[in-house]
Amino acid sequence: MKQDKKQNKKQKKTTQHRYGLWLIGAGGGIGGTVALGLAALSKKLADTTGLVTGLPEFENLGLTDPENIVVGGHEIRKEGFHESIQGMHLESGVIGANVIDACKTTLRSWQRNVRPGVVLGGRNHIHKLADQGNVKRVSTGQEAVNVIAEDLSAFRKKYKLTHVIVINIASSEPPLTPRAEHATYAKLWKALGTKSDKILPTSSLYALGAFAADCSYINFTPSVGMRVKAIEEYAKTRDVLYIGRDGKTGETLLKSVLAPLFAMRHLKILSWIGHNVLGNRDGEILSNPAVKVSKIKSKEQLVSRIVGYQPVTRTSIEYIPSLADWKVAWDYVHFEGFLGTKMNLQFTWTGTDSILAAPLVIDLARLTALEHTSGRRGAMPHLSCFFKDPYNVDEHNFFEQWRLLIDYVTCGIGTDQEPGSTDEA
Amino acid sequence: MKQDKKQNKKQKKTTQHRYGLWLIGAGGGIGGTVALGLAALSKKLADTTGLVTGLPEFENLGLTDPENIVVGGHEIRKEGFHESIQGMHLESGVIGANVIDACKTTLRSWQRNVRPGVVLGGRNHIHKLADQGNVKRVSTGQEAVNVIAEDLSAFRKKYKLTHVIVINIASSEPPLTPRAEHATYAKLWKALGTKSDKILPTSSLYALGAFAADCSYINFTPSVGMRVKAIEEYAKTRDVLYIGRDGKTGETLLKSVLAPLFAMRHLKILSWIGHNVLGNRDGEILSNPAVKVSKIKSKEQLVSRIVGYQPVTRTSIEYIPSLADWKVAWDYVHFEGFLGTKMNLQFTWTGTDSILAAPLVIDLARLTALEHTSGRRGAMPHLSCFFKDPYNVDEHNFFEQWRLLIDYVTCGIGTDQEPGSTDEA
Amino acid sequence: MKQDKKQNKKQKKTTQHRYGLWLIGAGGGIGGTVALGLAALSKKLADTTGLVTGLPEFENLGLTDPENIVVGGHEIRKEGFHESIQGMHLESGVIGANVIDACKTTLRSWQRNVRPGVVLGGRNHIHKLADQGNVKRVSTGQEAVNVIAEDLSAFRKKYKLTHVIVINIASSEPPLTPRAEHATYAKLWKALGTKSDKILPTSSLYALGAFAADCSYINFTPSVGMRVKAIEEYAKTRDVLYIGRDGKTGETLLKSVLAPLFAMRHLKILSWIGHNVLGNRDGEILSNPAVKVSKIKSKEQLVSRIVGYQPVTRTSIEYIPSLADWKVAWDYVHFEGFLGTKMNLQFTWTGTDSILAAPLVIDLARLTALEHTSGRRGAMPHLSCFFKDPYNVDEHNFFEQWRLLIDYVTCGIGTDQEPGSTDEA
Amino acid sequence: MKQDKKQNKKQKKTTQHRYGLWLIGAGGGIGGTVALGLAALSKKLADTTGLVTGLPEFENLGLTDPENIVVGGHEIRKEGFHESIQGMHLESGVIGANVIDACKTTLRSWQRNVRPGVVLGGRNHIHKLADQGNVKRVSTGQEAVNVIAEDLSAFRKKYKLTHVIVINIASSEPPLTPRAEHATYAKLWKALGTKSDKILPTSSLYALGAFAADCSYINFTPSVGMRVKAIEEYAKTRDVLYIGRDGKTGETLLKSVLAPLFAMRHLKILSWIGHNVLGNRDGEILSNPAVKVSKIKSKEQLVSRIVGYQPVTRTSIEYIPSLADWKVAWDYVHFEGFLGTKMNLQFTWTGTDSILAAPLVIDLARLTALEHTSGRRGAMPHLSCFFKDPYNVDEHNFFEQWRLLIDYVTCGIGTDQEPGSTDEA
Repeated sequence: MKQDKKQNKKQKKTTQHRYGLWLIGAGGGIGGTVALGLAALSKKLADTTGLVTGLPEFENLGLTDPENIVVGGHEIRKEGFHESIQGMHLESGVIGANVIDACKTTLRSWQRNVRPGVVLGGRNHIHKLADQGNVKRVSTGQEAVNVIAEDLSAFRKKYKLTHVIVINIASSEPPLTPRAEHATYAKLWKALGTKSDKILPTSSLYALGAFAADCSYINFTPSVGMRVKAIEEYAKTRDVLYIGRDGKTGETLLKSVLAPLFAMRHLKILSWIGHNVLGNRDGEILSNPAVKVSKIKSKEQLVSRIVGYQPVTRTSIEYIPSLADWKVAWDYVHFEGFLGTKMNLQFTWTGTDSILAAPLVIDLARLTALEHTSGRRGAMPHLSCFFKDPYNVDEHNFFEQWRLLIDYVTCGIGTDQEPGSTDEA
Repeated sequence: MKQDKKQNKKQKKTTQHRYGLWLIGAGGGIGGTVALGLAALSKKLADTTGLVTGLPEFENLGLTDPENIVVGGHEIRKEGFHESIQGMHLESGVIGANVIDACKTTLRSWQRNVRPGVVLGGRNHIHKLADQGNVKRVSTGQEAVNVIAEDLSAFRKKYKLTHVIVINIASSEPPLTPRAEHATYAKLWKALGTKSDKILPTSSLYALGAFAADCSYINFTPSVGMRVKAIEEYAKTRDVLYIGRDGKTGETLLKSVLAPLFAMRHLKILSWIGHNVLGNRDGEILSNPAVKVSKIKSKEQLVSRIVGYQPVTRTSIEYIPSLADWKVAWDYVHFEGFLGTKMNLQFTWTGTDSILAAPLVIDLARLTALEHTSGRRGAMPHLSCFFKDPYNVDEHNFFEQWRLLIDYVTCGIGTDQEPGSTDEA
Repeated sequence: MKQDKKQNKKQKKTTQHRYGLWLIGAGGGIGGTVALGLAALSKKLADTTGLVTGLPEFENLGLTDPENIVVGGHEIRKEGFHESIQGMHLESGVIGANVIDACKTTLRSWQRNVRPGVVLGGRNHIHKLADQGNVKRVSTGQEAVNVIAEDLSAFRKKYKLTHVIVINIASSEPPLTPRAEHATYAKLWKALGTKSDKILPTSSLYALGAFAADCSYINFTPSVGMRVKAIEEYAKTRDVLYIGRDGKTGETLLKSVLAPLFAMRHLKILSWIGHNVLGNRDGEILSNPAVKVSKIKSKEQLVSRIVGYQPVTRTSIEYIPSLADWKVAWDYVHFEGFLGTKMNLQFTWTGTDSILAAPLVIDLARLTALEHTSGRRGAMPHLSCFFKDPYNVDEHNFFEQWRLLIDYVTCGIGTDQEPGSTDEA
Repeated sequence: MKQDKKQNKKQKKTTQHRYGLWLIGAGGGIGGTVALGLAALSKKLADTTGLVTGLPEFENLGLTDPENIVVGGHEIRKEGFHESIQGMHLESGVIGANVIDACKTTLRSWQRNVRPGVVLGGRNHIHKLADQGNVKRVSTGQEAVNVIAEDLSAFRKKYKLTHVIVINIASSEPPLTPRAEHATYAKLWKALGTKSDKILPTSSLYALGAFAADCSYINFTPSVGMRVKAIEEYAKTRDVLYIGRDGKTGETLLKSVLAPLFAMRHLKILSWIGHNVLGNRDGEILSNPAVKVSKIKSKEQLVSRIVGYQPVTRTSIEYIPSLADWKVAWDYVHFEGFLGTKMNLQFTWTGTDSILAAPLVIDLARLTALEHTSGRRGAMPHLSCFFKDPYNVDEHNFFEQWRLLIDYVTCGIGTDQEPGSTDEA
């Protein structure tokens, strides 16, 4: 009987809440796969393989169903969800043609929610990608933030959404040079009133725009996003949740389980070399050395943080167009065992980036929606297992991060507390 | 001041307790490396890299120091500790010649504790290895058990040892065919009085001999050892500790951290193929198909137990003499992600078997000595992270097994309780 | 002007000669890909990548164009060209859906040339694959040969073909046990008149049938085929060409260029280990240990034949259904350099078997057609670079085999002599 | 009887001719291994594994025996042959301690032939390596050339050598910027009279010094050496032989057999990615980006030259000190087969650089000595199979290069012609 009641409540909830998933950089491979994936899940054309929230541990939390999530986003290129998915199918040999066809109408409908990307001044490494006509040019940072917030508010209104979750899946940016204006929100906002395009990177303008519209913000890339003191200050004043940064999908994910293994067996890592080759737009952007720095930093710091000393670490990235959406990572771990003996482990990871990332983006949306409905606000450290560089969490051992998530799930923070708030909602 | 006191107590304890480490199969590469390793640690010629008990977490438990461990064993071949280590140095290019020279005297002295291997009837796959003259032939199982127990008792007496820990590092045996006599100790002992050599495998006779002499028994191989109902029954009546089986040193260790990763990311393992090539005597023995079955079973069951479903798993082993003590394992993991996409991970592990195993054998001896001194008896489930097929423990996820060990350590089962018993000793 | 004339002649020839390509085992992945490939080449939907005869060296030889080749074959299963290609597309992610659609009519038309596979007595390992109804059961070997020859003659007549080339791409068979009847054709034929199914394997019955119908015979598998003294004797009396055996498409191809490298640098190969995992029907058949022996022998002998001494060689094969038509081969080469130093090379080859094999089958058909039109008969040693175990050729170094082919091509054996015979035809 | 005579003659020759092998950069791992190798071969403590000239094809050419070769060289560091070999033994686990001990006296004796490295002005990337006191500083290029030539003449005189062969095995240099003075020897020599250190790199000064002393010059590195028009002009006027550049020992060697394979099977290479990690001084020097450029250029050009089109090629190099003399190269070859199917080959090469290079250096010395005694002068294109970027030879397919060498050997250019010149000598 208890079950019936829960069942009942769940059905009610399903009809009561709808959430928005807003993708910054909607037109890339991840964006297309997120949209297609949600559509396919709703239509029961895909199972939950690859979705963490599809595991039995997450079954009774009252997570929102895929059919209650509406997709929108910003994008500077003209390519839409359907085109990008067809490109993946033809060039990378993934996703069945029948599933793509069956979801075409939904993808086209969501495509109408995609707004022109906001470009401030003369930002360079993006220019080549920005097709004529799908860009909203602005001259100050304040203007950018306002445009973004308005786009988000309009989206929420149009679909009567309970909450909108903004997830940054746009191309990586170069690292940020610190400035005095980053210290407080007041100083920052003032500086953003000038015509300078040097104050904040684009990802941070989007974070500010999201918070201004009371949307949660998740940074799935190594870009700066909300990692500026002034923005953090502002975030705390808004009705939002946040977490990031840089989704942990492949090579780094493996590092985060293998490095602890070496530590626990007291095997000394002498050197850890990683070489990544990839063919998608992320790779193309990363062929810009300034951008590559951000990504490599995000990937490299992890091993020494886990083992507690500094082995020689090297990470390199090459853009190889023939690989299309595939990414191949070769890692060579040189380690020392008993009596000074040097041994090695090498692995090759062959994965499709978008296919690995998309379900995690959906997971993050669902888990943030749950957290929002449960009434909590602020950072979400229990989601650190999704990120290479988790916000305000020093733990990089994947299994310890996983425990944070499982503790959250089993301590009833989901189910037990939610019903109350749900009933009142 | 508290520190001084502890320091003091530790010094006292060091002089009070001496432990014996008795190796079944002392003359192989692992045996030589264990002996050399203990000698080198005592002489400060080696650091604790590779020893789990060398990690900071184990620092204040009051573990016995390497200099308090005396080595002995059984062996059917004539090759001794020093010869086997020199062979490793020359053929496998490991362990510095200077360390070997400096430890020569200790190795020679321990060599005098090595007793002829006990051989019952006409056991075949061992025969080729058994040099003339270093074998004690017996005609019944009872006789075998008695000889083994007497050798152990003499060793304990000779060195006035607090406790002797028997660790089986002999070559793998074929799987056991169940027999009616295995049901109770009474039936088993009676059957062992006959001239049959079919009742129990050699590893089980050694386990019985160890228990008869009140020595703890640890099975580092996939052989049967104490995994017979009647022997378990007997073990509970003796003043002993026990755990096993099959040390987790390389490929399977990796499986036990990678399989959980796939599970936690909800990536479906389609097939897991492992191919192992190795050049040492273990490999030579494993070229016997009947023996190979035991090893492969021990290696294969793990993945499905961790993920909860049965992927296609294949494990093969080839004996390649040119590799000497090196072992190369190639694993190919074929898995499915979101939207039916097939991806793969492959790794190559290149390690020296003896160098990886030996420090774990020393760890097991130290941790068993601690447990014995602490007054506990029976199985030691907290040591399951050392084994491919841990005794009475269903957990195969390495990090969960590690937690069992860390919980044991941090719950003061070591330090807090020991001082008391030590003081009274 | 000379060119114009040649151009002219070529056009003439194209309209004059049509050839038949008869596939034993037409319904598998290779058969489907050969048929689709020929159709796609004719329709200019595929370029010649993967076809040796598409290289510039073969341009002016007067090779027949793909549109002049008609496909037929024998097959015991019901699956046809189109079904097998669609299976490849869906399960292995290869070949564009648009190409398959465009060639559907041709595939269906050729499907009507596929005759039921001939099954003598109660042959076991094939039975499971033989769908009810697509098998022609016969009770003596003579009957089998006659049915096969009649099928071939009917095919030649139907399309008014200049010559029919029979290529065996059926599943591998176990090795042959020599018998007294294999010594002469007279004895053999007499024995084939009895009801025994032990005299010859199926592949040899097909070879006899091909020769009886004056068709050339090429064995692309490790099966026995024409490698029986009595069949060789018979072949020499017929108007045919022949070569084999076992197409060199992947791992062995690499061995045939890497082993010479080690030899020429005087690096001593200590051990060469190969582990092959594959998911297609060939793999399924090879999971039968008796069959596996043939394949492994064909793969292993090569290294020692090239380097002139016998390293330790190991080759293993595992059937892994999830790989579908993909084959992954991991090879580990352990070698010794100067001053006794051991080093290693390892490689992983990831290829789709049918895609690699099919263009070589087309090459062999074209090159045999050329040779036939040029008036030569008997063995074709210049085609040895296509095979793991070339007929009557001891050379296994790929580059020496390649030279045989290039010498054949450049010595005008093709162009120069052909015009004469063509004109007279 | 003919054999006896040859035998006789060979013995005579052995006592008549002694050759000098002069190593530029004698103190590195290759230098130490060359010296040790020659000493060990002379004392029959090593066999000829790894020496191309140890193959049967080279047996009756009358090549000089190792005991007739005396070693000398230039070096800026203080480390000598014996120290560098001991370092290799301890850090890289190669070469038996007994061989090193047995050759110690010879190494020490040859060490006295090693002259201080010549340093012109303030050359930077070498400075860190140049220990105080083992450097001969000069202020003009002319002075450098003269010092080098005098050192070489003194060496020849001291040992009454028939001929001295100078082989450059020093660290790689950055690429050369072309200058007007490089056009003719007259202009160049004049410019070398000034105090500028910008005219020529060090490797070129050594080449000039070698030619000035009528010594043959072989460049085993990617540095410029004699590849300057003016130096080539000068070389033709001297009594010398020459060849280069950049010894082909590992990854590139593999490329030169695998790229032809793809070409001959008409498989289209889409991308070829190579990642090299190495721990010796060559690696340390290569961590200088300007120097790395030379090496990478030498490694990359090869694939496109062999296949005749330009795939995407990437080669990266990382200095990883823990690897000591070991070098690990991971290559990923992405290629397209029939019907647009993308497949891949990846390999990992694990070799010790010095052990692979040293025997080739000895081969080059022996083959140059033979050529010199045979009376020929100038370039030696038949030795192109030893080099990544052979002098005046466009052929990069290893097997075609090998054929050049074998044609040279079998056409009697060695044996048949030599006796005459030997008799007269």
